Amino acid sequence: MLPVNRFTQFIAQNNLFSADNKILAAVSGGMDSVVMAHLLKVAGFNFSIAHCNFQLRGDEAVGDQAFCNDLALQLRVPFHTINFDTVKYVSDNKVSTQMAARELRYQWFEQLRQQHDYSVIALAHHQNDAIETILLNLTRGTGIAGMHGILPKNGLLVRPLLFLTREEIQQIITDNRLAFVEDSSNASAKYARNKIRLEVIPKLKELNPNLESTFNHNLEHFRGLELLLQQKVAELKHELFIQHDEEIHIPLAKIKMLEPKRLLLFNLLQEYGFNETSIDDLISSLDKHSGRIFESAGFNLLLDRERLIISPNKTALIKPVQFTENTHEVDFGSYKLTLLHDDSPLIVKNNPMAASVDADLLQYPLTLRTWQQGDYFYPIGMRTRKKLSDFFIDQKVPLHEKNNIPLLVNANDELIWIGGYRPDDRYKVSKNTKKVTIFELIKK
Amino acid sequence: MLPVNRFTQFIAQNNLFSADNKILAAVSGGMDSVVMAHLLKVAGFNFSIAHCNFQLRGDEAVGDQAFCNDLALQLRVPFHTINFDTVKYVSDNKVSTQMAARELRYQWFEQLRQQHDYSVIALAHHQNDAIETILLNLTRGTGIAGMHGILPKNGLLVRPLLFLTREEIQQIITDNRLAFVEDSSNASAKYARNKIRLEVIPKLKELNPNLESTFNHNLEHFRGLELLLQQKVAELKHELFIQHDEEIHIPLAKIKMLEPKRLLLFNLLQEYGFNETSIDDLISSLDKHSGRIFESAGFNLLLDRERLIISPNKTALIKPVQFTENTHEVDFGSYKLTLLHDDSPLIVKNNPMAASVDADLLQYPLTLRTWQQGDYFYPIGMRTRKKLSDFFIDQKVPLHEKNNIPLLVNANDELIWIGGYRPDDRYKVSKNTKKVTIFELIKK
Repeated sequence: MLPVNRFTQFIAQNNLFSADNKILAAVSGGMDSVVMAHLLKVAGFNFSIAHCNFQLRGDEAVGDQAFCNDLALQLRVPFHTINFDTVKYVSDNKVSTQMAARELRYQWFEQLRQQHDYSVIALAHHQNDAIETILLNLTRGTGIAGMHGILPKNGLLVRPLLFLTREEIQQIITDNRLAFVEDSSNASAKYARNKIRLEVIPKLKELNPNLESTFNHNLEHFRGLELLLQQKVAELKHELFIQHDEEIHIPLAKIKMLEPKRLLLFNLLQEYGFNETSIDDLISSLDKHSGRIFESAGFNLLLDRERLIISPNKTALIKPVQFTENTHEVDFGSYKLTLLHDDSPLIVKNNPMAASVDADLLQYPLTLRTWQQGDYFYPIGMRTRKKLSDFFIDQKVPLHEKNNIPLLVNANDELIWIGGYRPDDRYKVSKNTKKVTIFELIKK
Repeated sequence: MLPVNRFTQFIAQNNLFSADNKILAAVSGGMDSVVMAHLLKVAGFNFSIAHCNFQLRGDEAVGDQAFCNDLALQLRVPFHTINFDTVKYVSDNKVSTQMAARELRYQWFEQLRQQHDYSVIALAHHQNDAIETILLNLTRGTGIAGMHGILPKNGLLVRPLLFLTREEIQQIITDNRLAFVEDSSNASAKYARNKIRLEVIPKLKELNPNLESTFNHNLEHFRGLELLLQQKVAELKHELFIQHDEEIHIPLAKIKMLEPKRLLLFNLLQEYGFNETSIDDLISSLDKHSGRIFESAGFNLLLDRERLIISPNKTALIKPVQFTENTHEVDFGSYKLTLLHDDSPLIVKNNPMAASVDADLLQYPLTLRTWQQGDYFYPIGMRTRKKLSDFFIDQKVPLHEKNNIPLLVNANDELIWIGGYRPDDRYKVSKNTKKVTIFELIKK
């Protein structure tokens, strides 16, 4: 028997989704996601299965893909799948395989979500994943702020299996004779997690056989505290931040009264690109160095006599670059943009670092520049225009990173592509497209 | 060389104590407390050494006691020591040896502090103790609320060695050729801690060689969050609690808006004796069961239509008992009081569960009763009277426990002894005392 009541109860209690939502279930084919898919089916939810092939394990991965396709057929739900060129993404973006897989996966899920109007993306993490993550985060020092990854709900990601332990999932698989494939994540990324799982947690379980439920309780406590912190920071912003045109002024007297000072100041200022070291510097300067300036990637922090003034760091702004059709490469901040012209309506898929555009719509010279107040565009797949500032908020782009995002702009001033994020719908490759230009961004 | 600069810097940064404070240093004679004593000396602080002999290890413990006495002589600081009958305390109070040692130790430190006017009590916990405590608390589920034990400052307890790792302390011992005795705590109490120390932490250090500094950082984060929680709870009490004579009324509409509800409600109501189970019950009743009553040891919680009403649980109050000189035993709530008359001026020392009183000052019948509004007494060693309600606040007695504390009252209505806490100065054994009566409380 599947624990359908506990499943629906957990979903209701944590407000994950409801019977009229469309759910995208991420399924690797491993035990956890197979149990999630069966539970979603038996509980009567409206869901589809999405499976990624990272093309890192040859035939085995193709087998997993086929297995998931069969599962979708068996459960009679829609099936999405994709083949990623993970190796290329790694070398293009100079990230780890683990990070590449993560970025590719989440970008694709989000794309599917928007295209097919899914309400949430369901991931099959269970209680033991959560324990391992807490211990890993404590060990590596991301602290409890790094624990969003195991919240039942974090934005549009939901984790409806967090009420089950690994053992319970194994039991469900056995009892119900469910087919599954061996876990498909890559082994090296799992070194640290395996050490925690196989060497640390068994020792802790000798001290407390109910470790899972205890950690569940810890987790709820942390979650509550983290929520209080977020509330407090929002209150303080409202209370202390005074907007003067492009600047934000904060009365120094109020900053001196903050307690705990380091925690609150860091959470108030991190979105302007200031790290803990700058915050420590700032705190030790509060009583002595008026006139001191701290810099982040995009902002200056001026310690005035009576105020702290946050202002955009204009000198750090990347200068706009114009270029013509014959250009092959453009330098822009920490990126290089390449152009490739092709006489067929090629579409680049699932790579946010590249965009293929209908070449006939391009008016040269094109410009690469950073965002400006008032920018808007038509995100691909949408018929309505969106303010870029709102888009950045939706995408949770930190303020200081906004100034590093390359925007590809047509000679008519229309945005063609929010580099690394979203192409404009007006310039997409359509059935009438004859030729395309493919733009690709490469991190230097 | 001793790391005096880091020591004084840590003390200053955490506001532990200053050059004009008198400090009581708890010294077992082990590495940690020996390093603390030497550091206090070299840094020029005004301190005394206190050493407990729990009489659990015979000659070895006597040796440790002598070692600490020598250390005090060598450092030319005052020395306090005491022999506890720990075994008797364990059997009288039905507590574990570990708990008995803990209670006896802290009661004595506090007594010394009051008698000799020490500003703070310094304990020699270091960074690895802190890591072990965090992991133990997470494993056992006391969560981060159980982490007060490793704060640099918690009330009058300070931990000036928290800036050092165990390895650093060992290095200091070696480099400075400092004498010390083997750690004197009892082995069985250390089973869990040893498992964490020897089996869990080495695995985590394989993942992060700088585990200590990372955990220090985690700890600071937790401390900050815990402080925010305390602030929030204090604000909410001020904002929501409306006093009506003996009752506290809280508008239900405001309770329903609390978020995170469980964390905040628990922290608002725990001092009235309500545990997490009652809070969960209460939360699930908020929308349906008006009229429902929840009971704790000392309070009722009435879920009214528009308010939550906290009132003292009168039926649970223990009835006063009168008794005469010839009584041997008195039953009172969960305690039994015994009387012993003696014709010599015997003084009971260091056992808060017993009091020896000048027999000539007693006017029978005596009464055992719980506290009343307006009660006051003269805490032993003090010349000024103290409101009992203030005393309970100082002692951090939870509200619901106040109603279980037996007060020994003279026929003239003066308080003789706050059972389990403090005798009255007016009734103490003095040089004029001829006969004593020894009262002892035993938990049933």
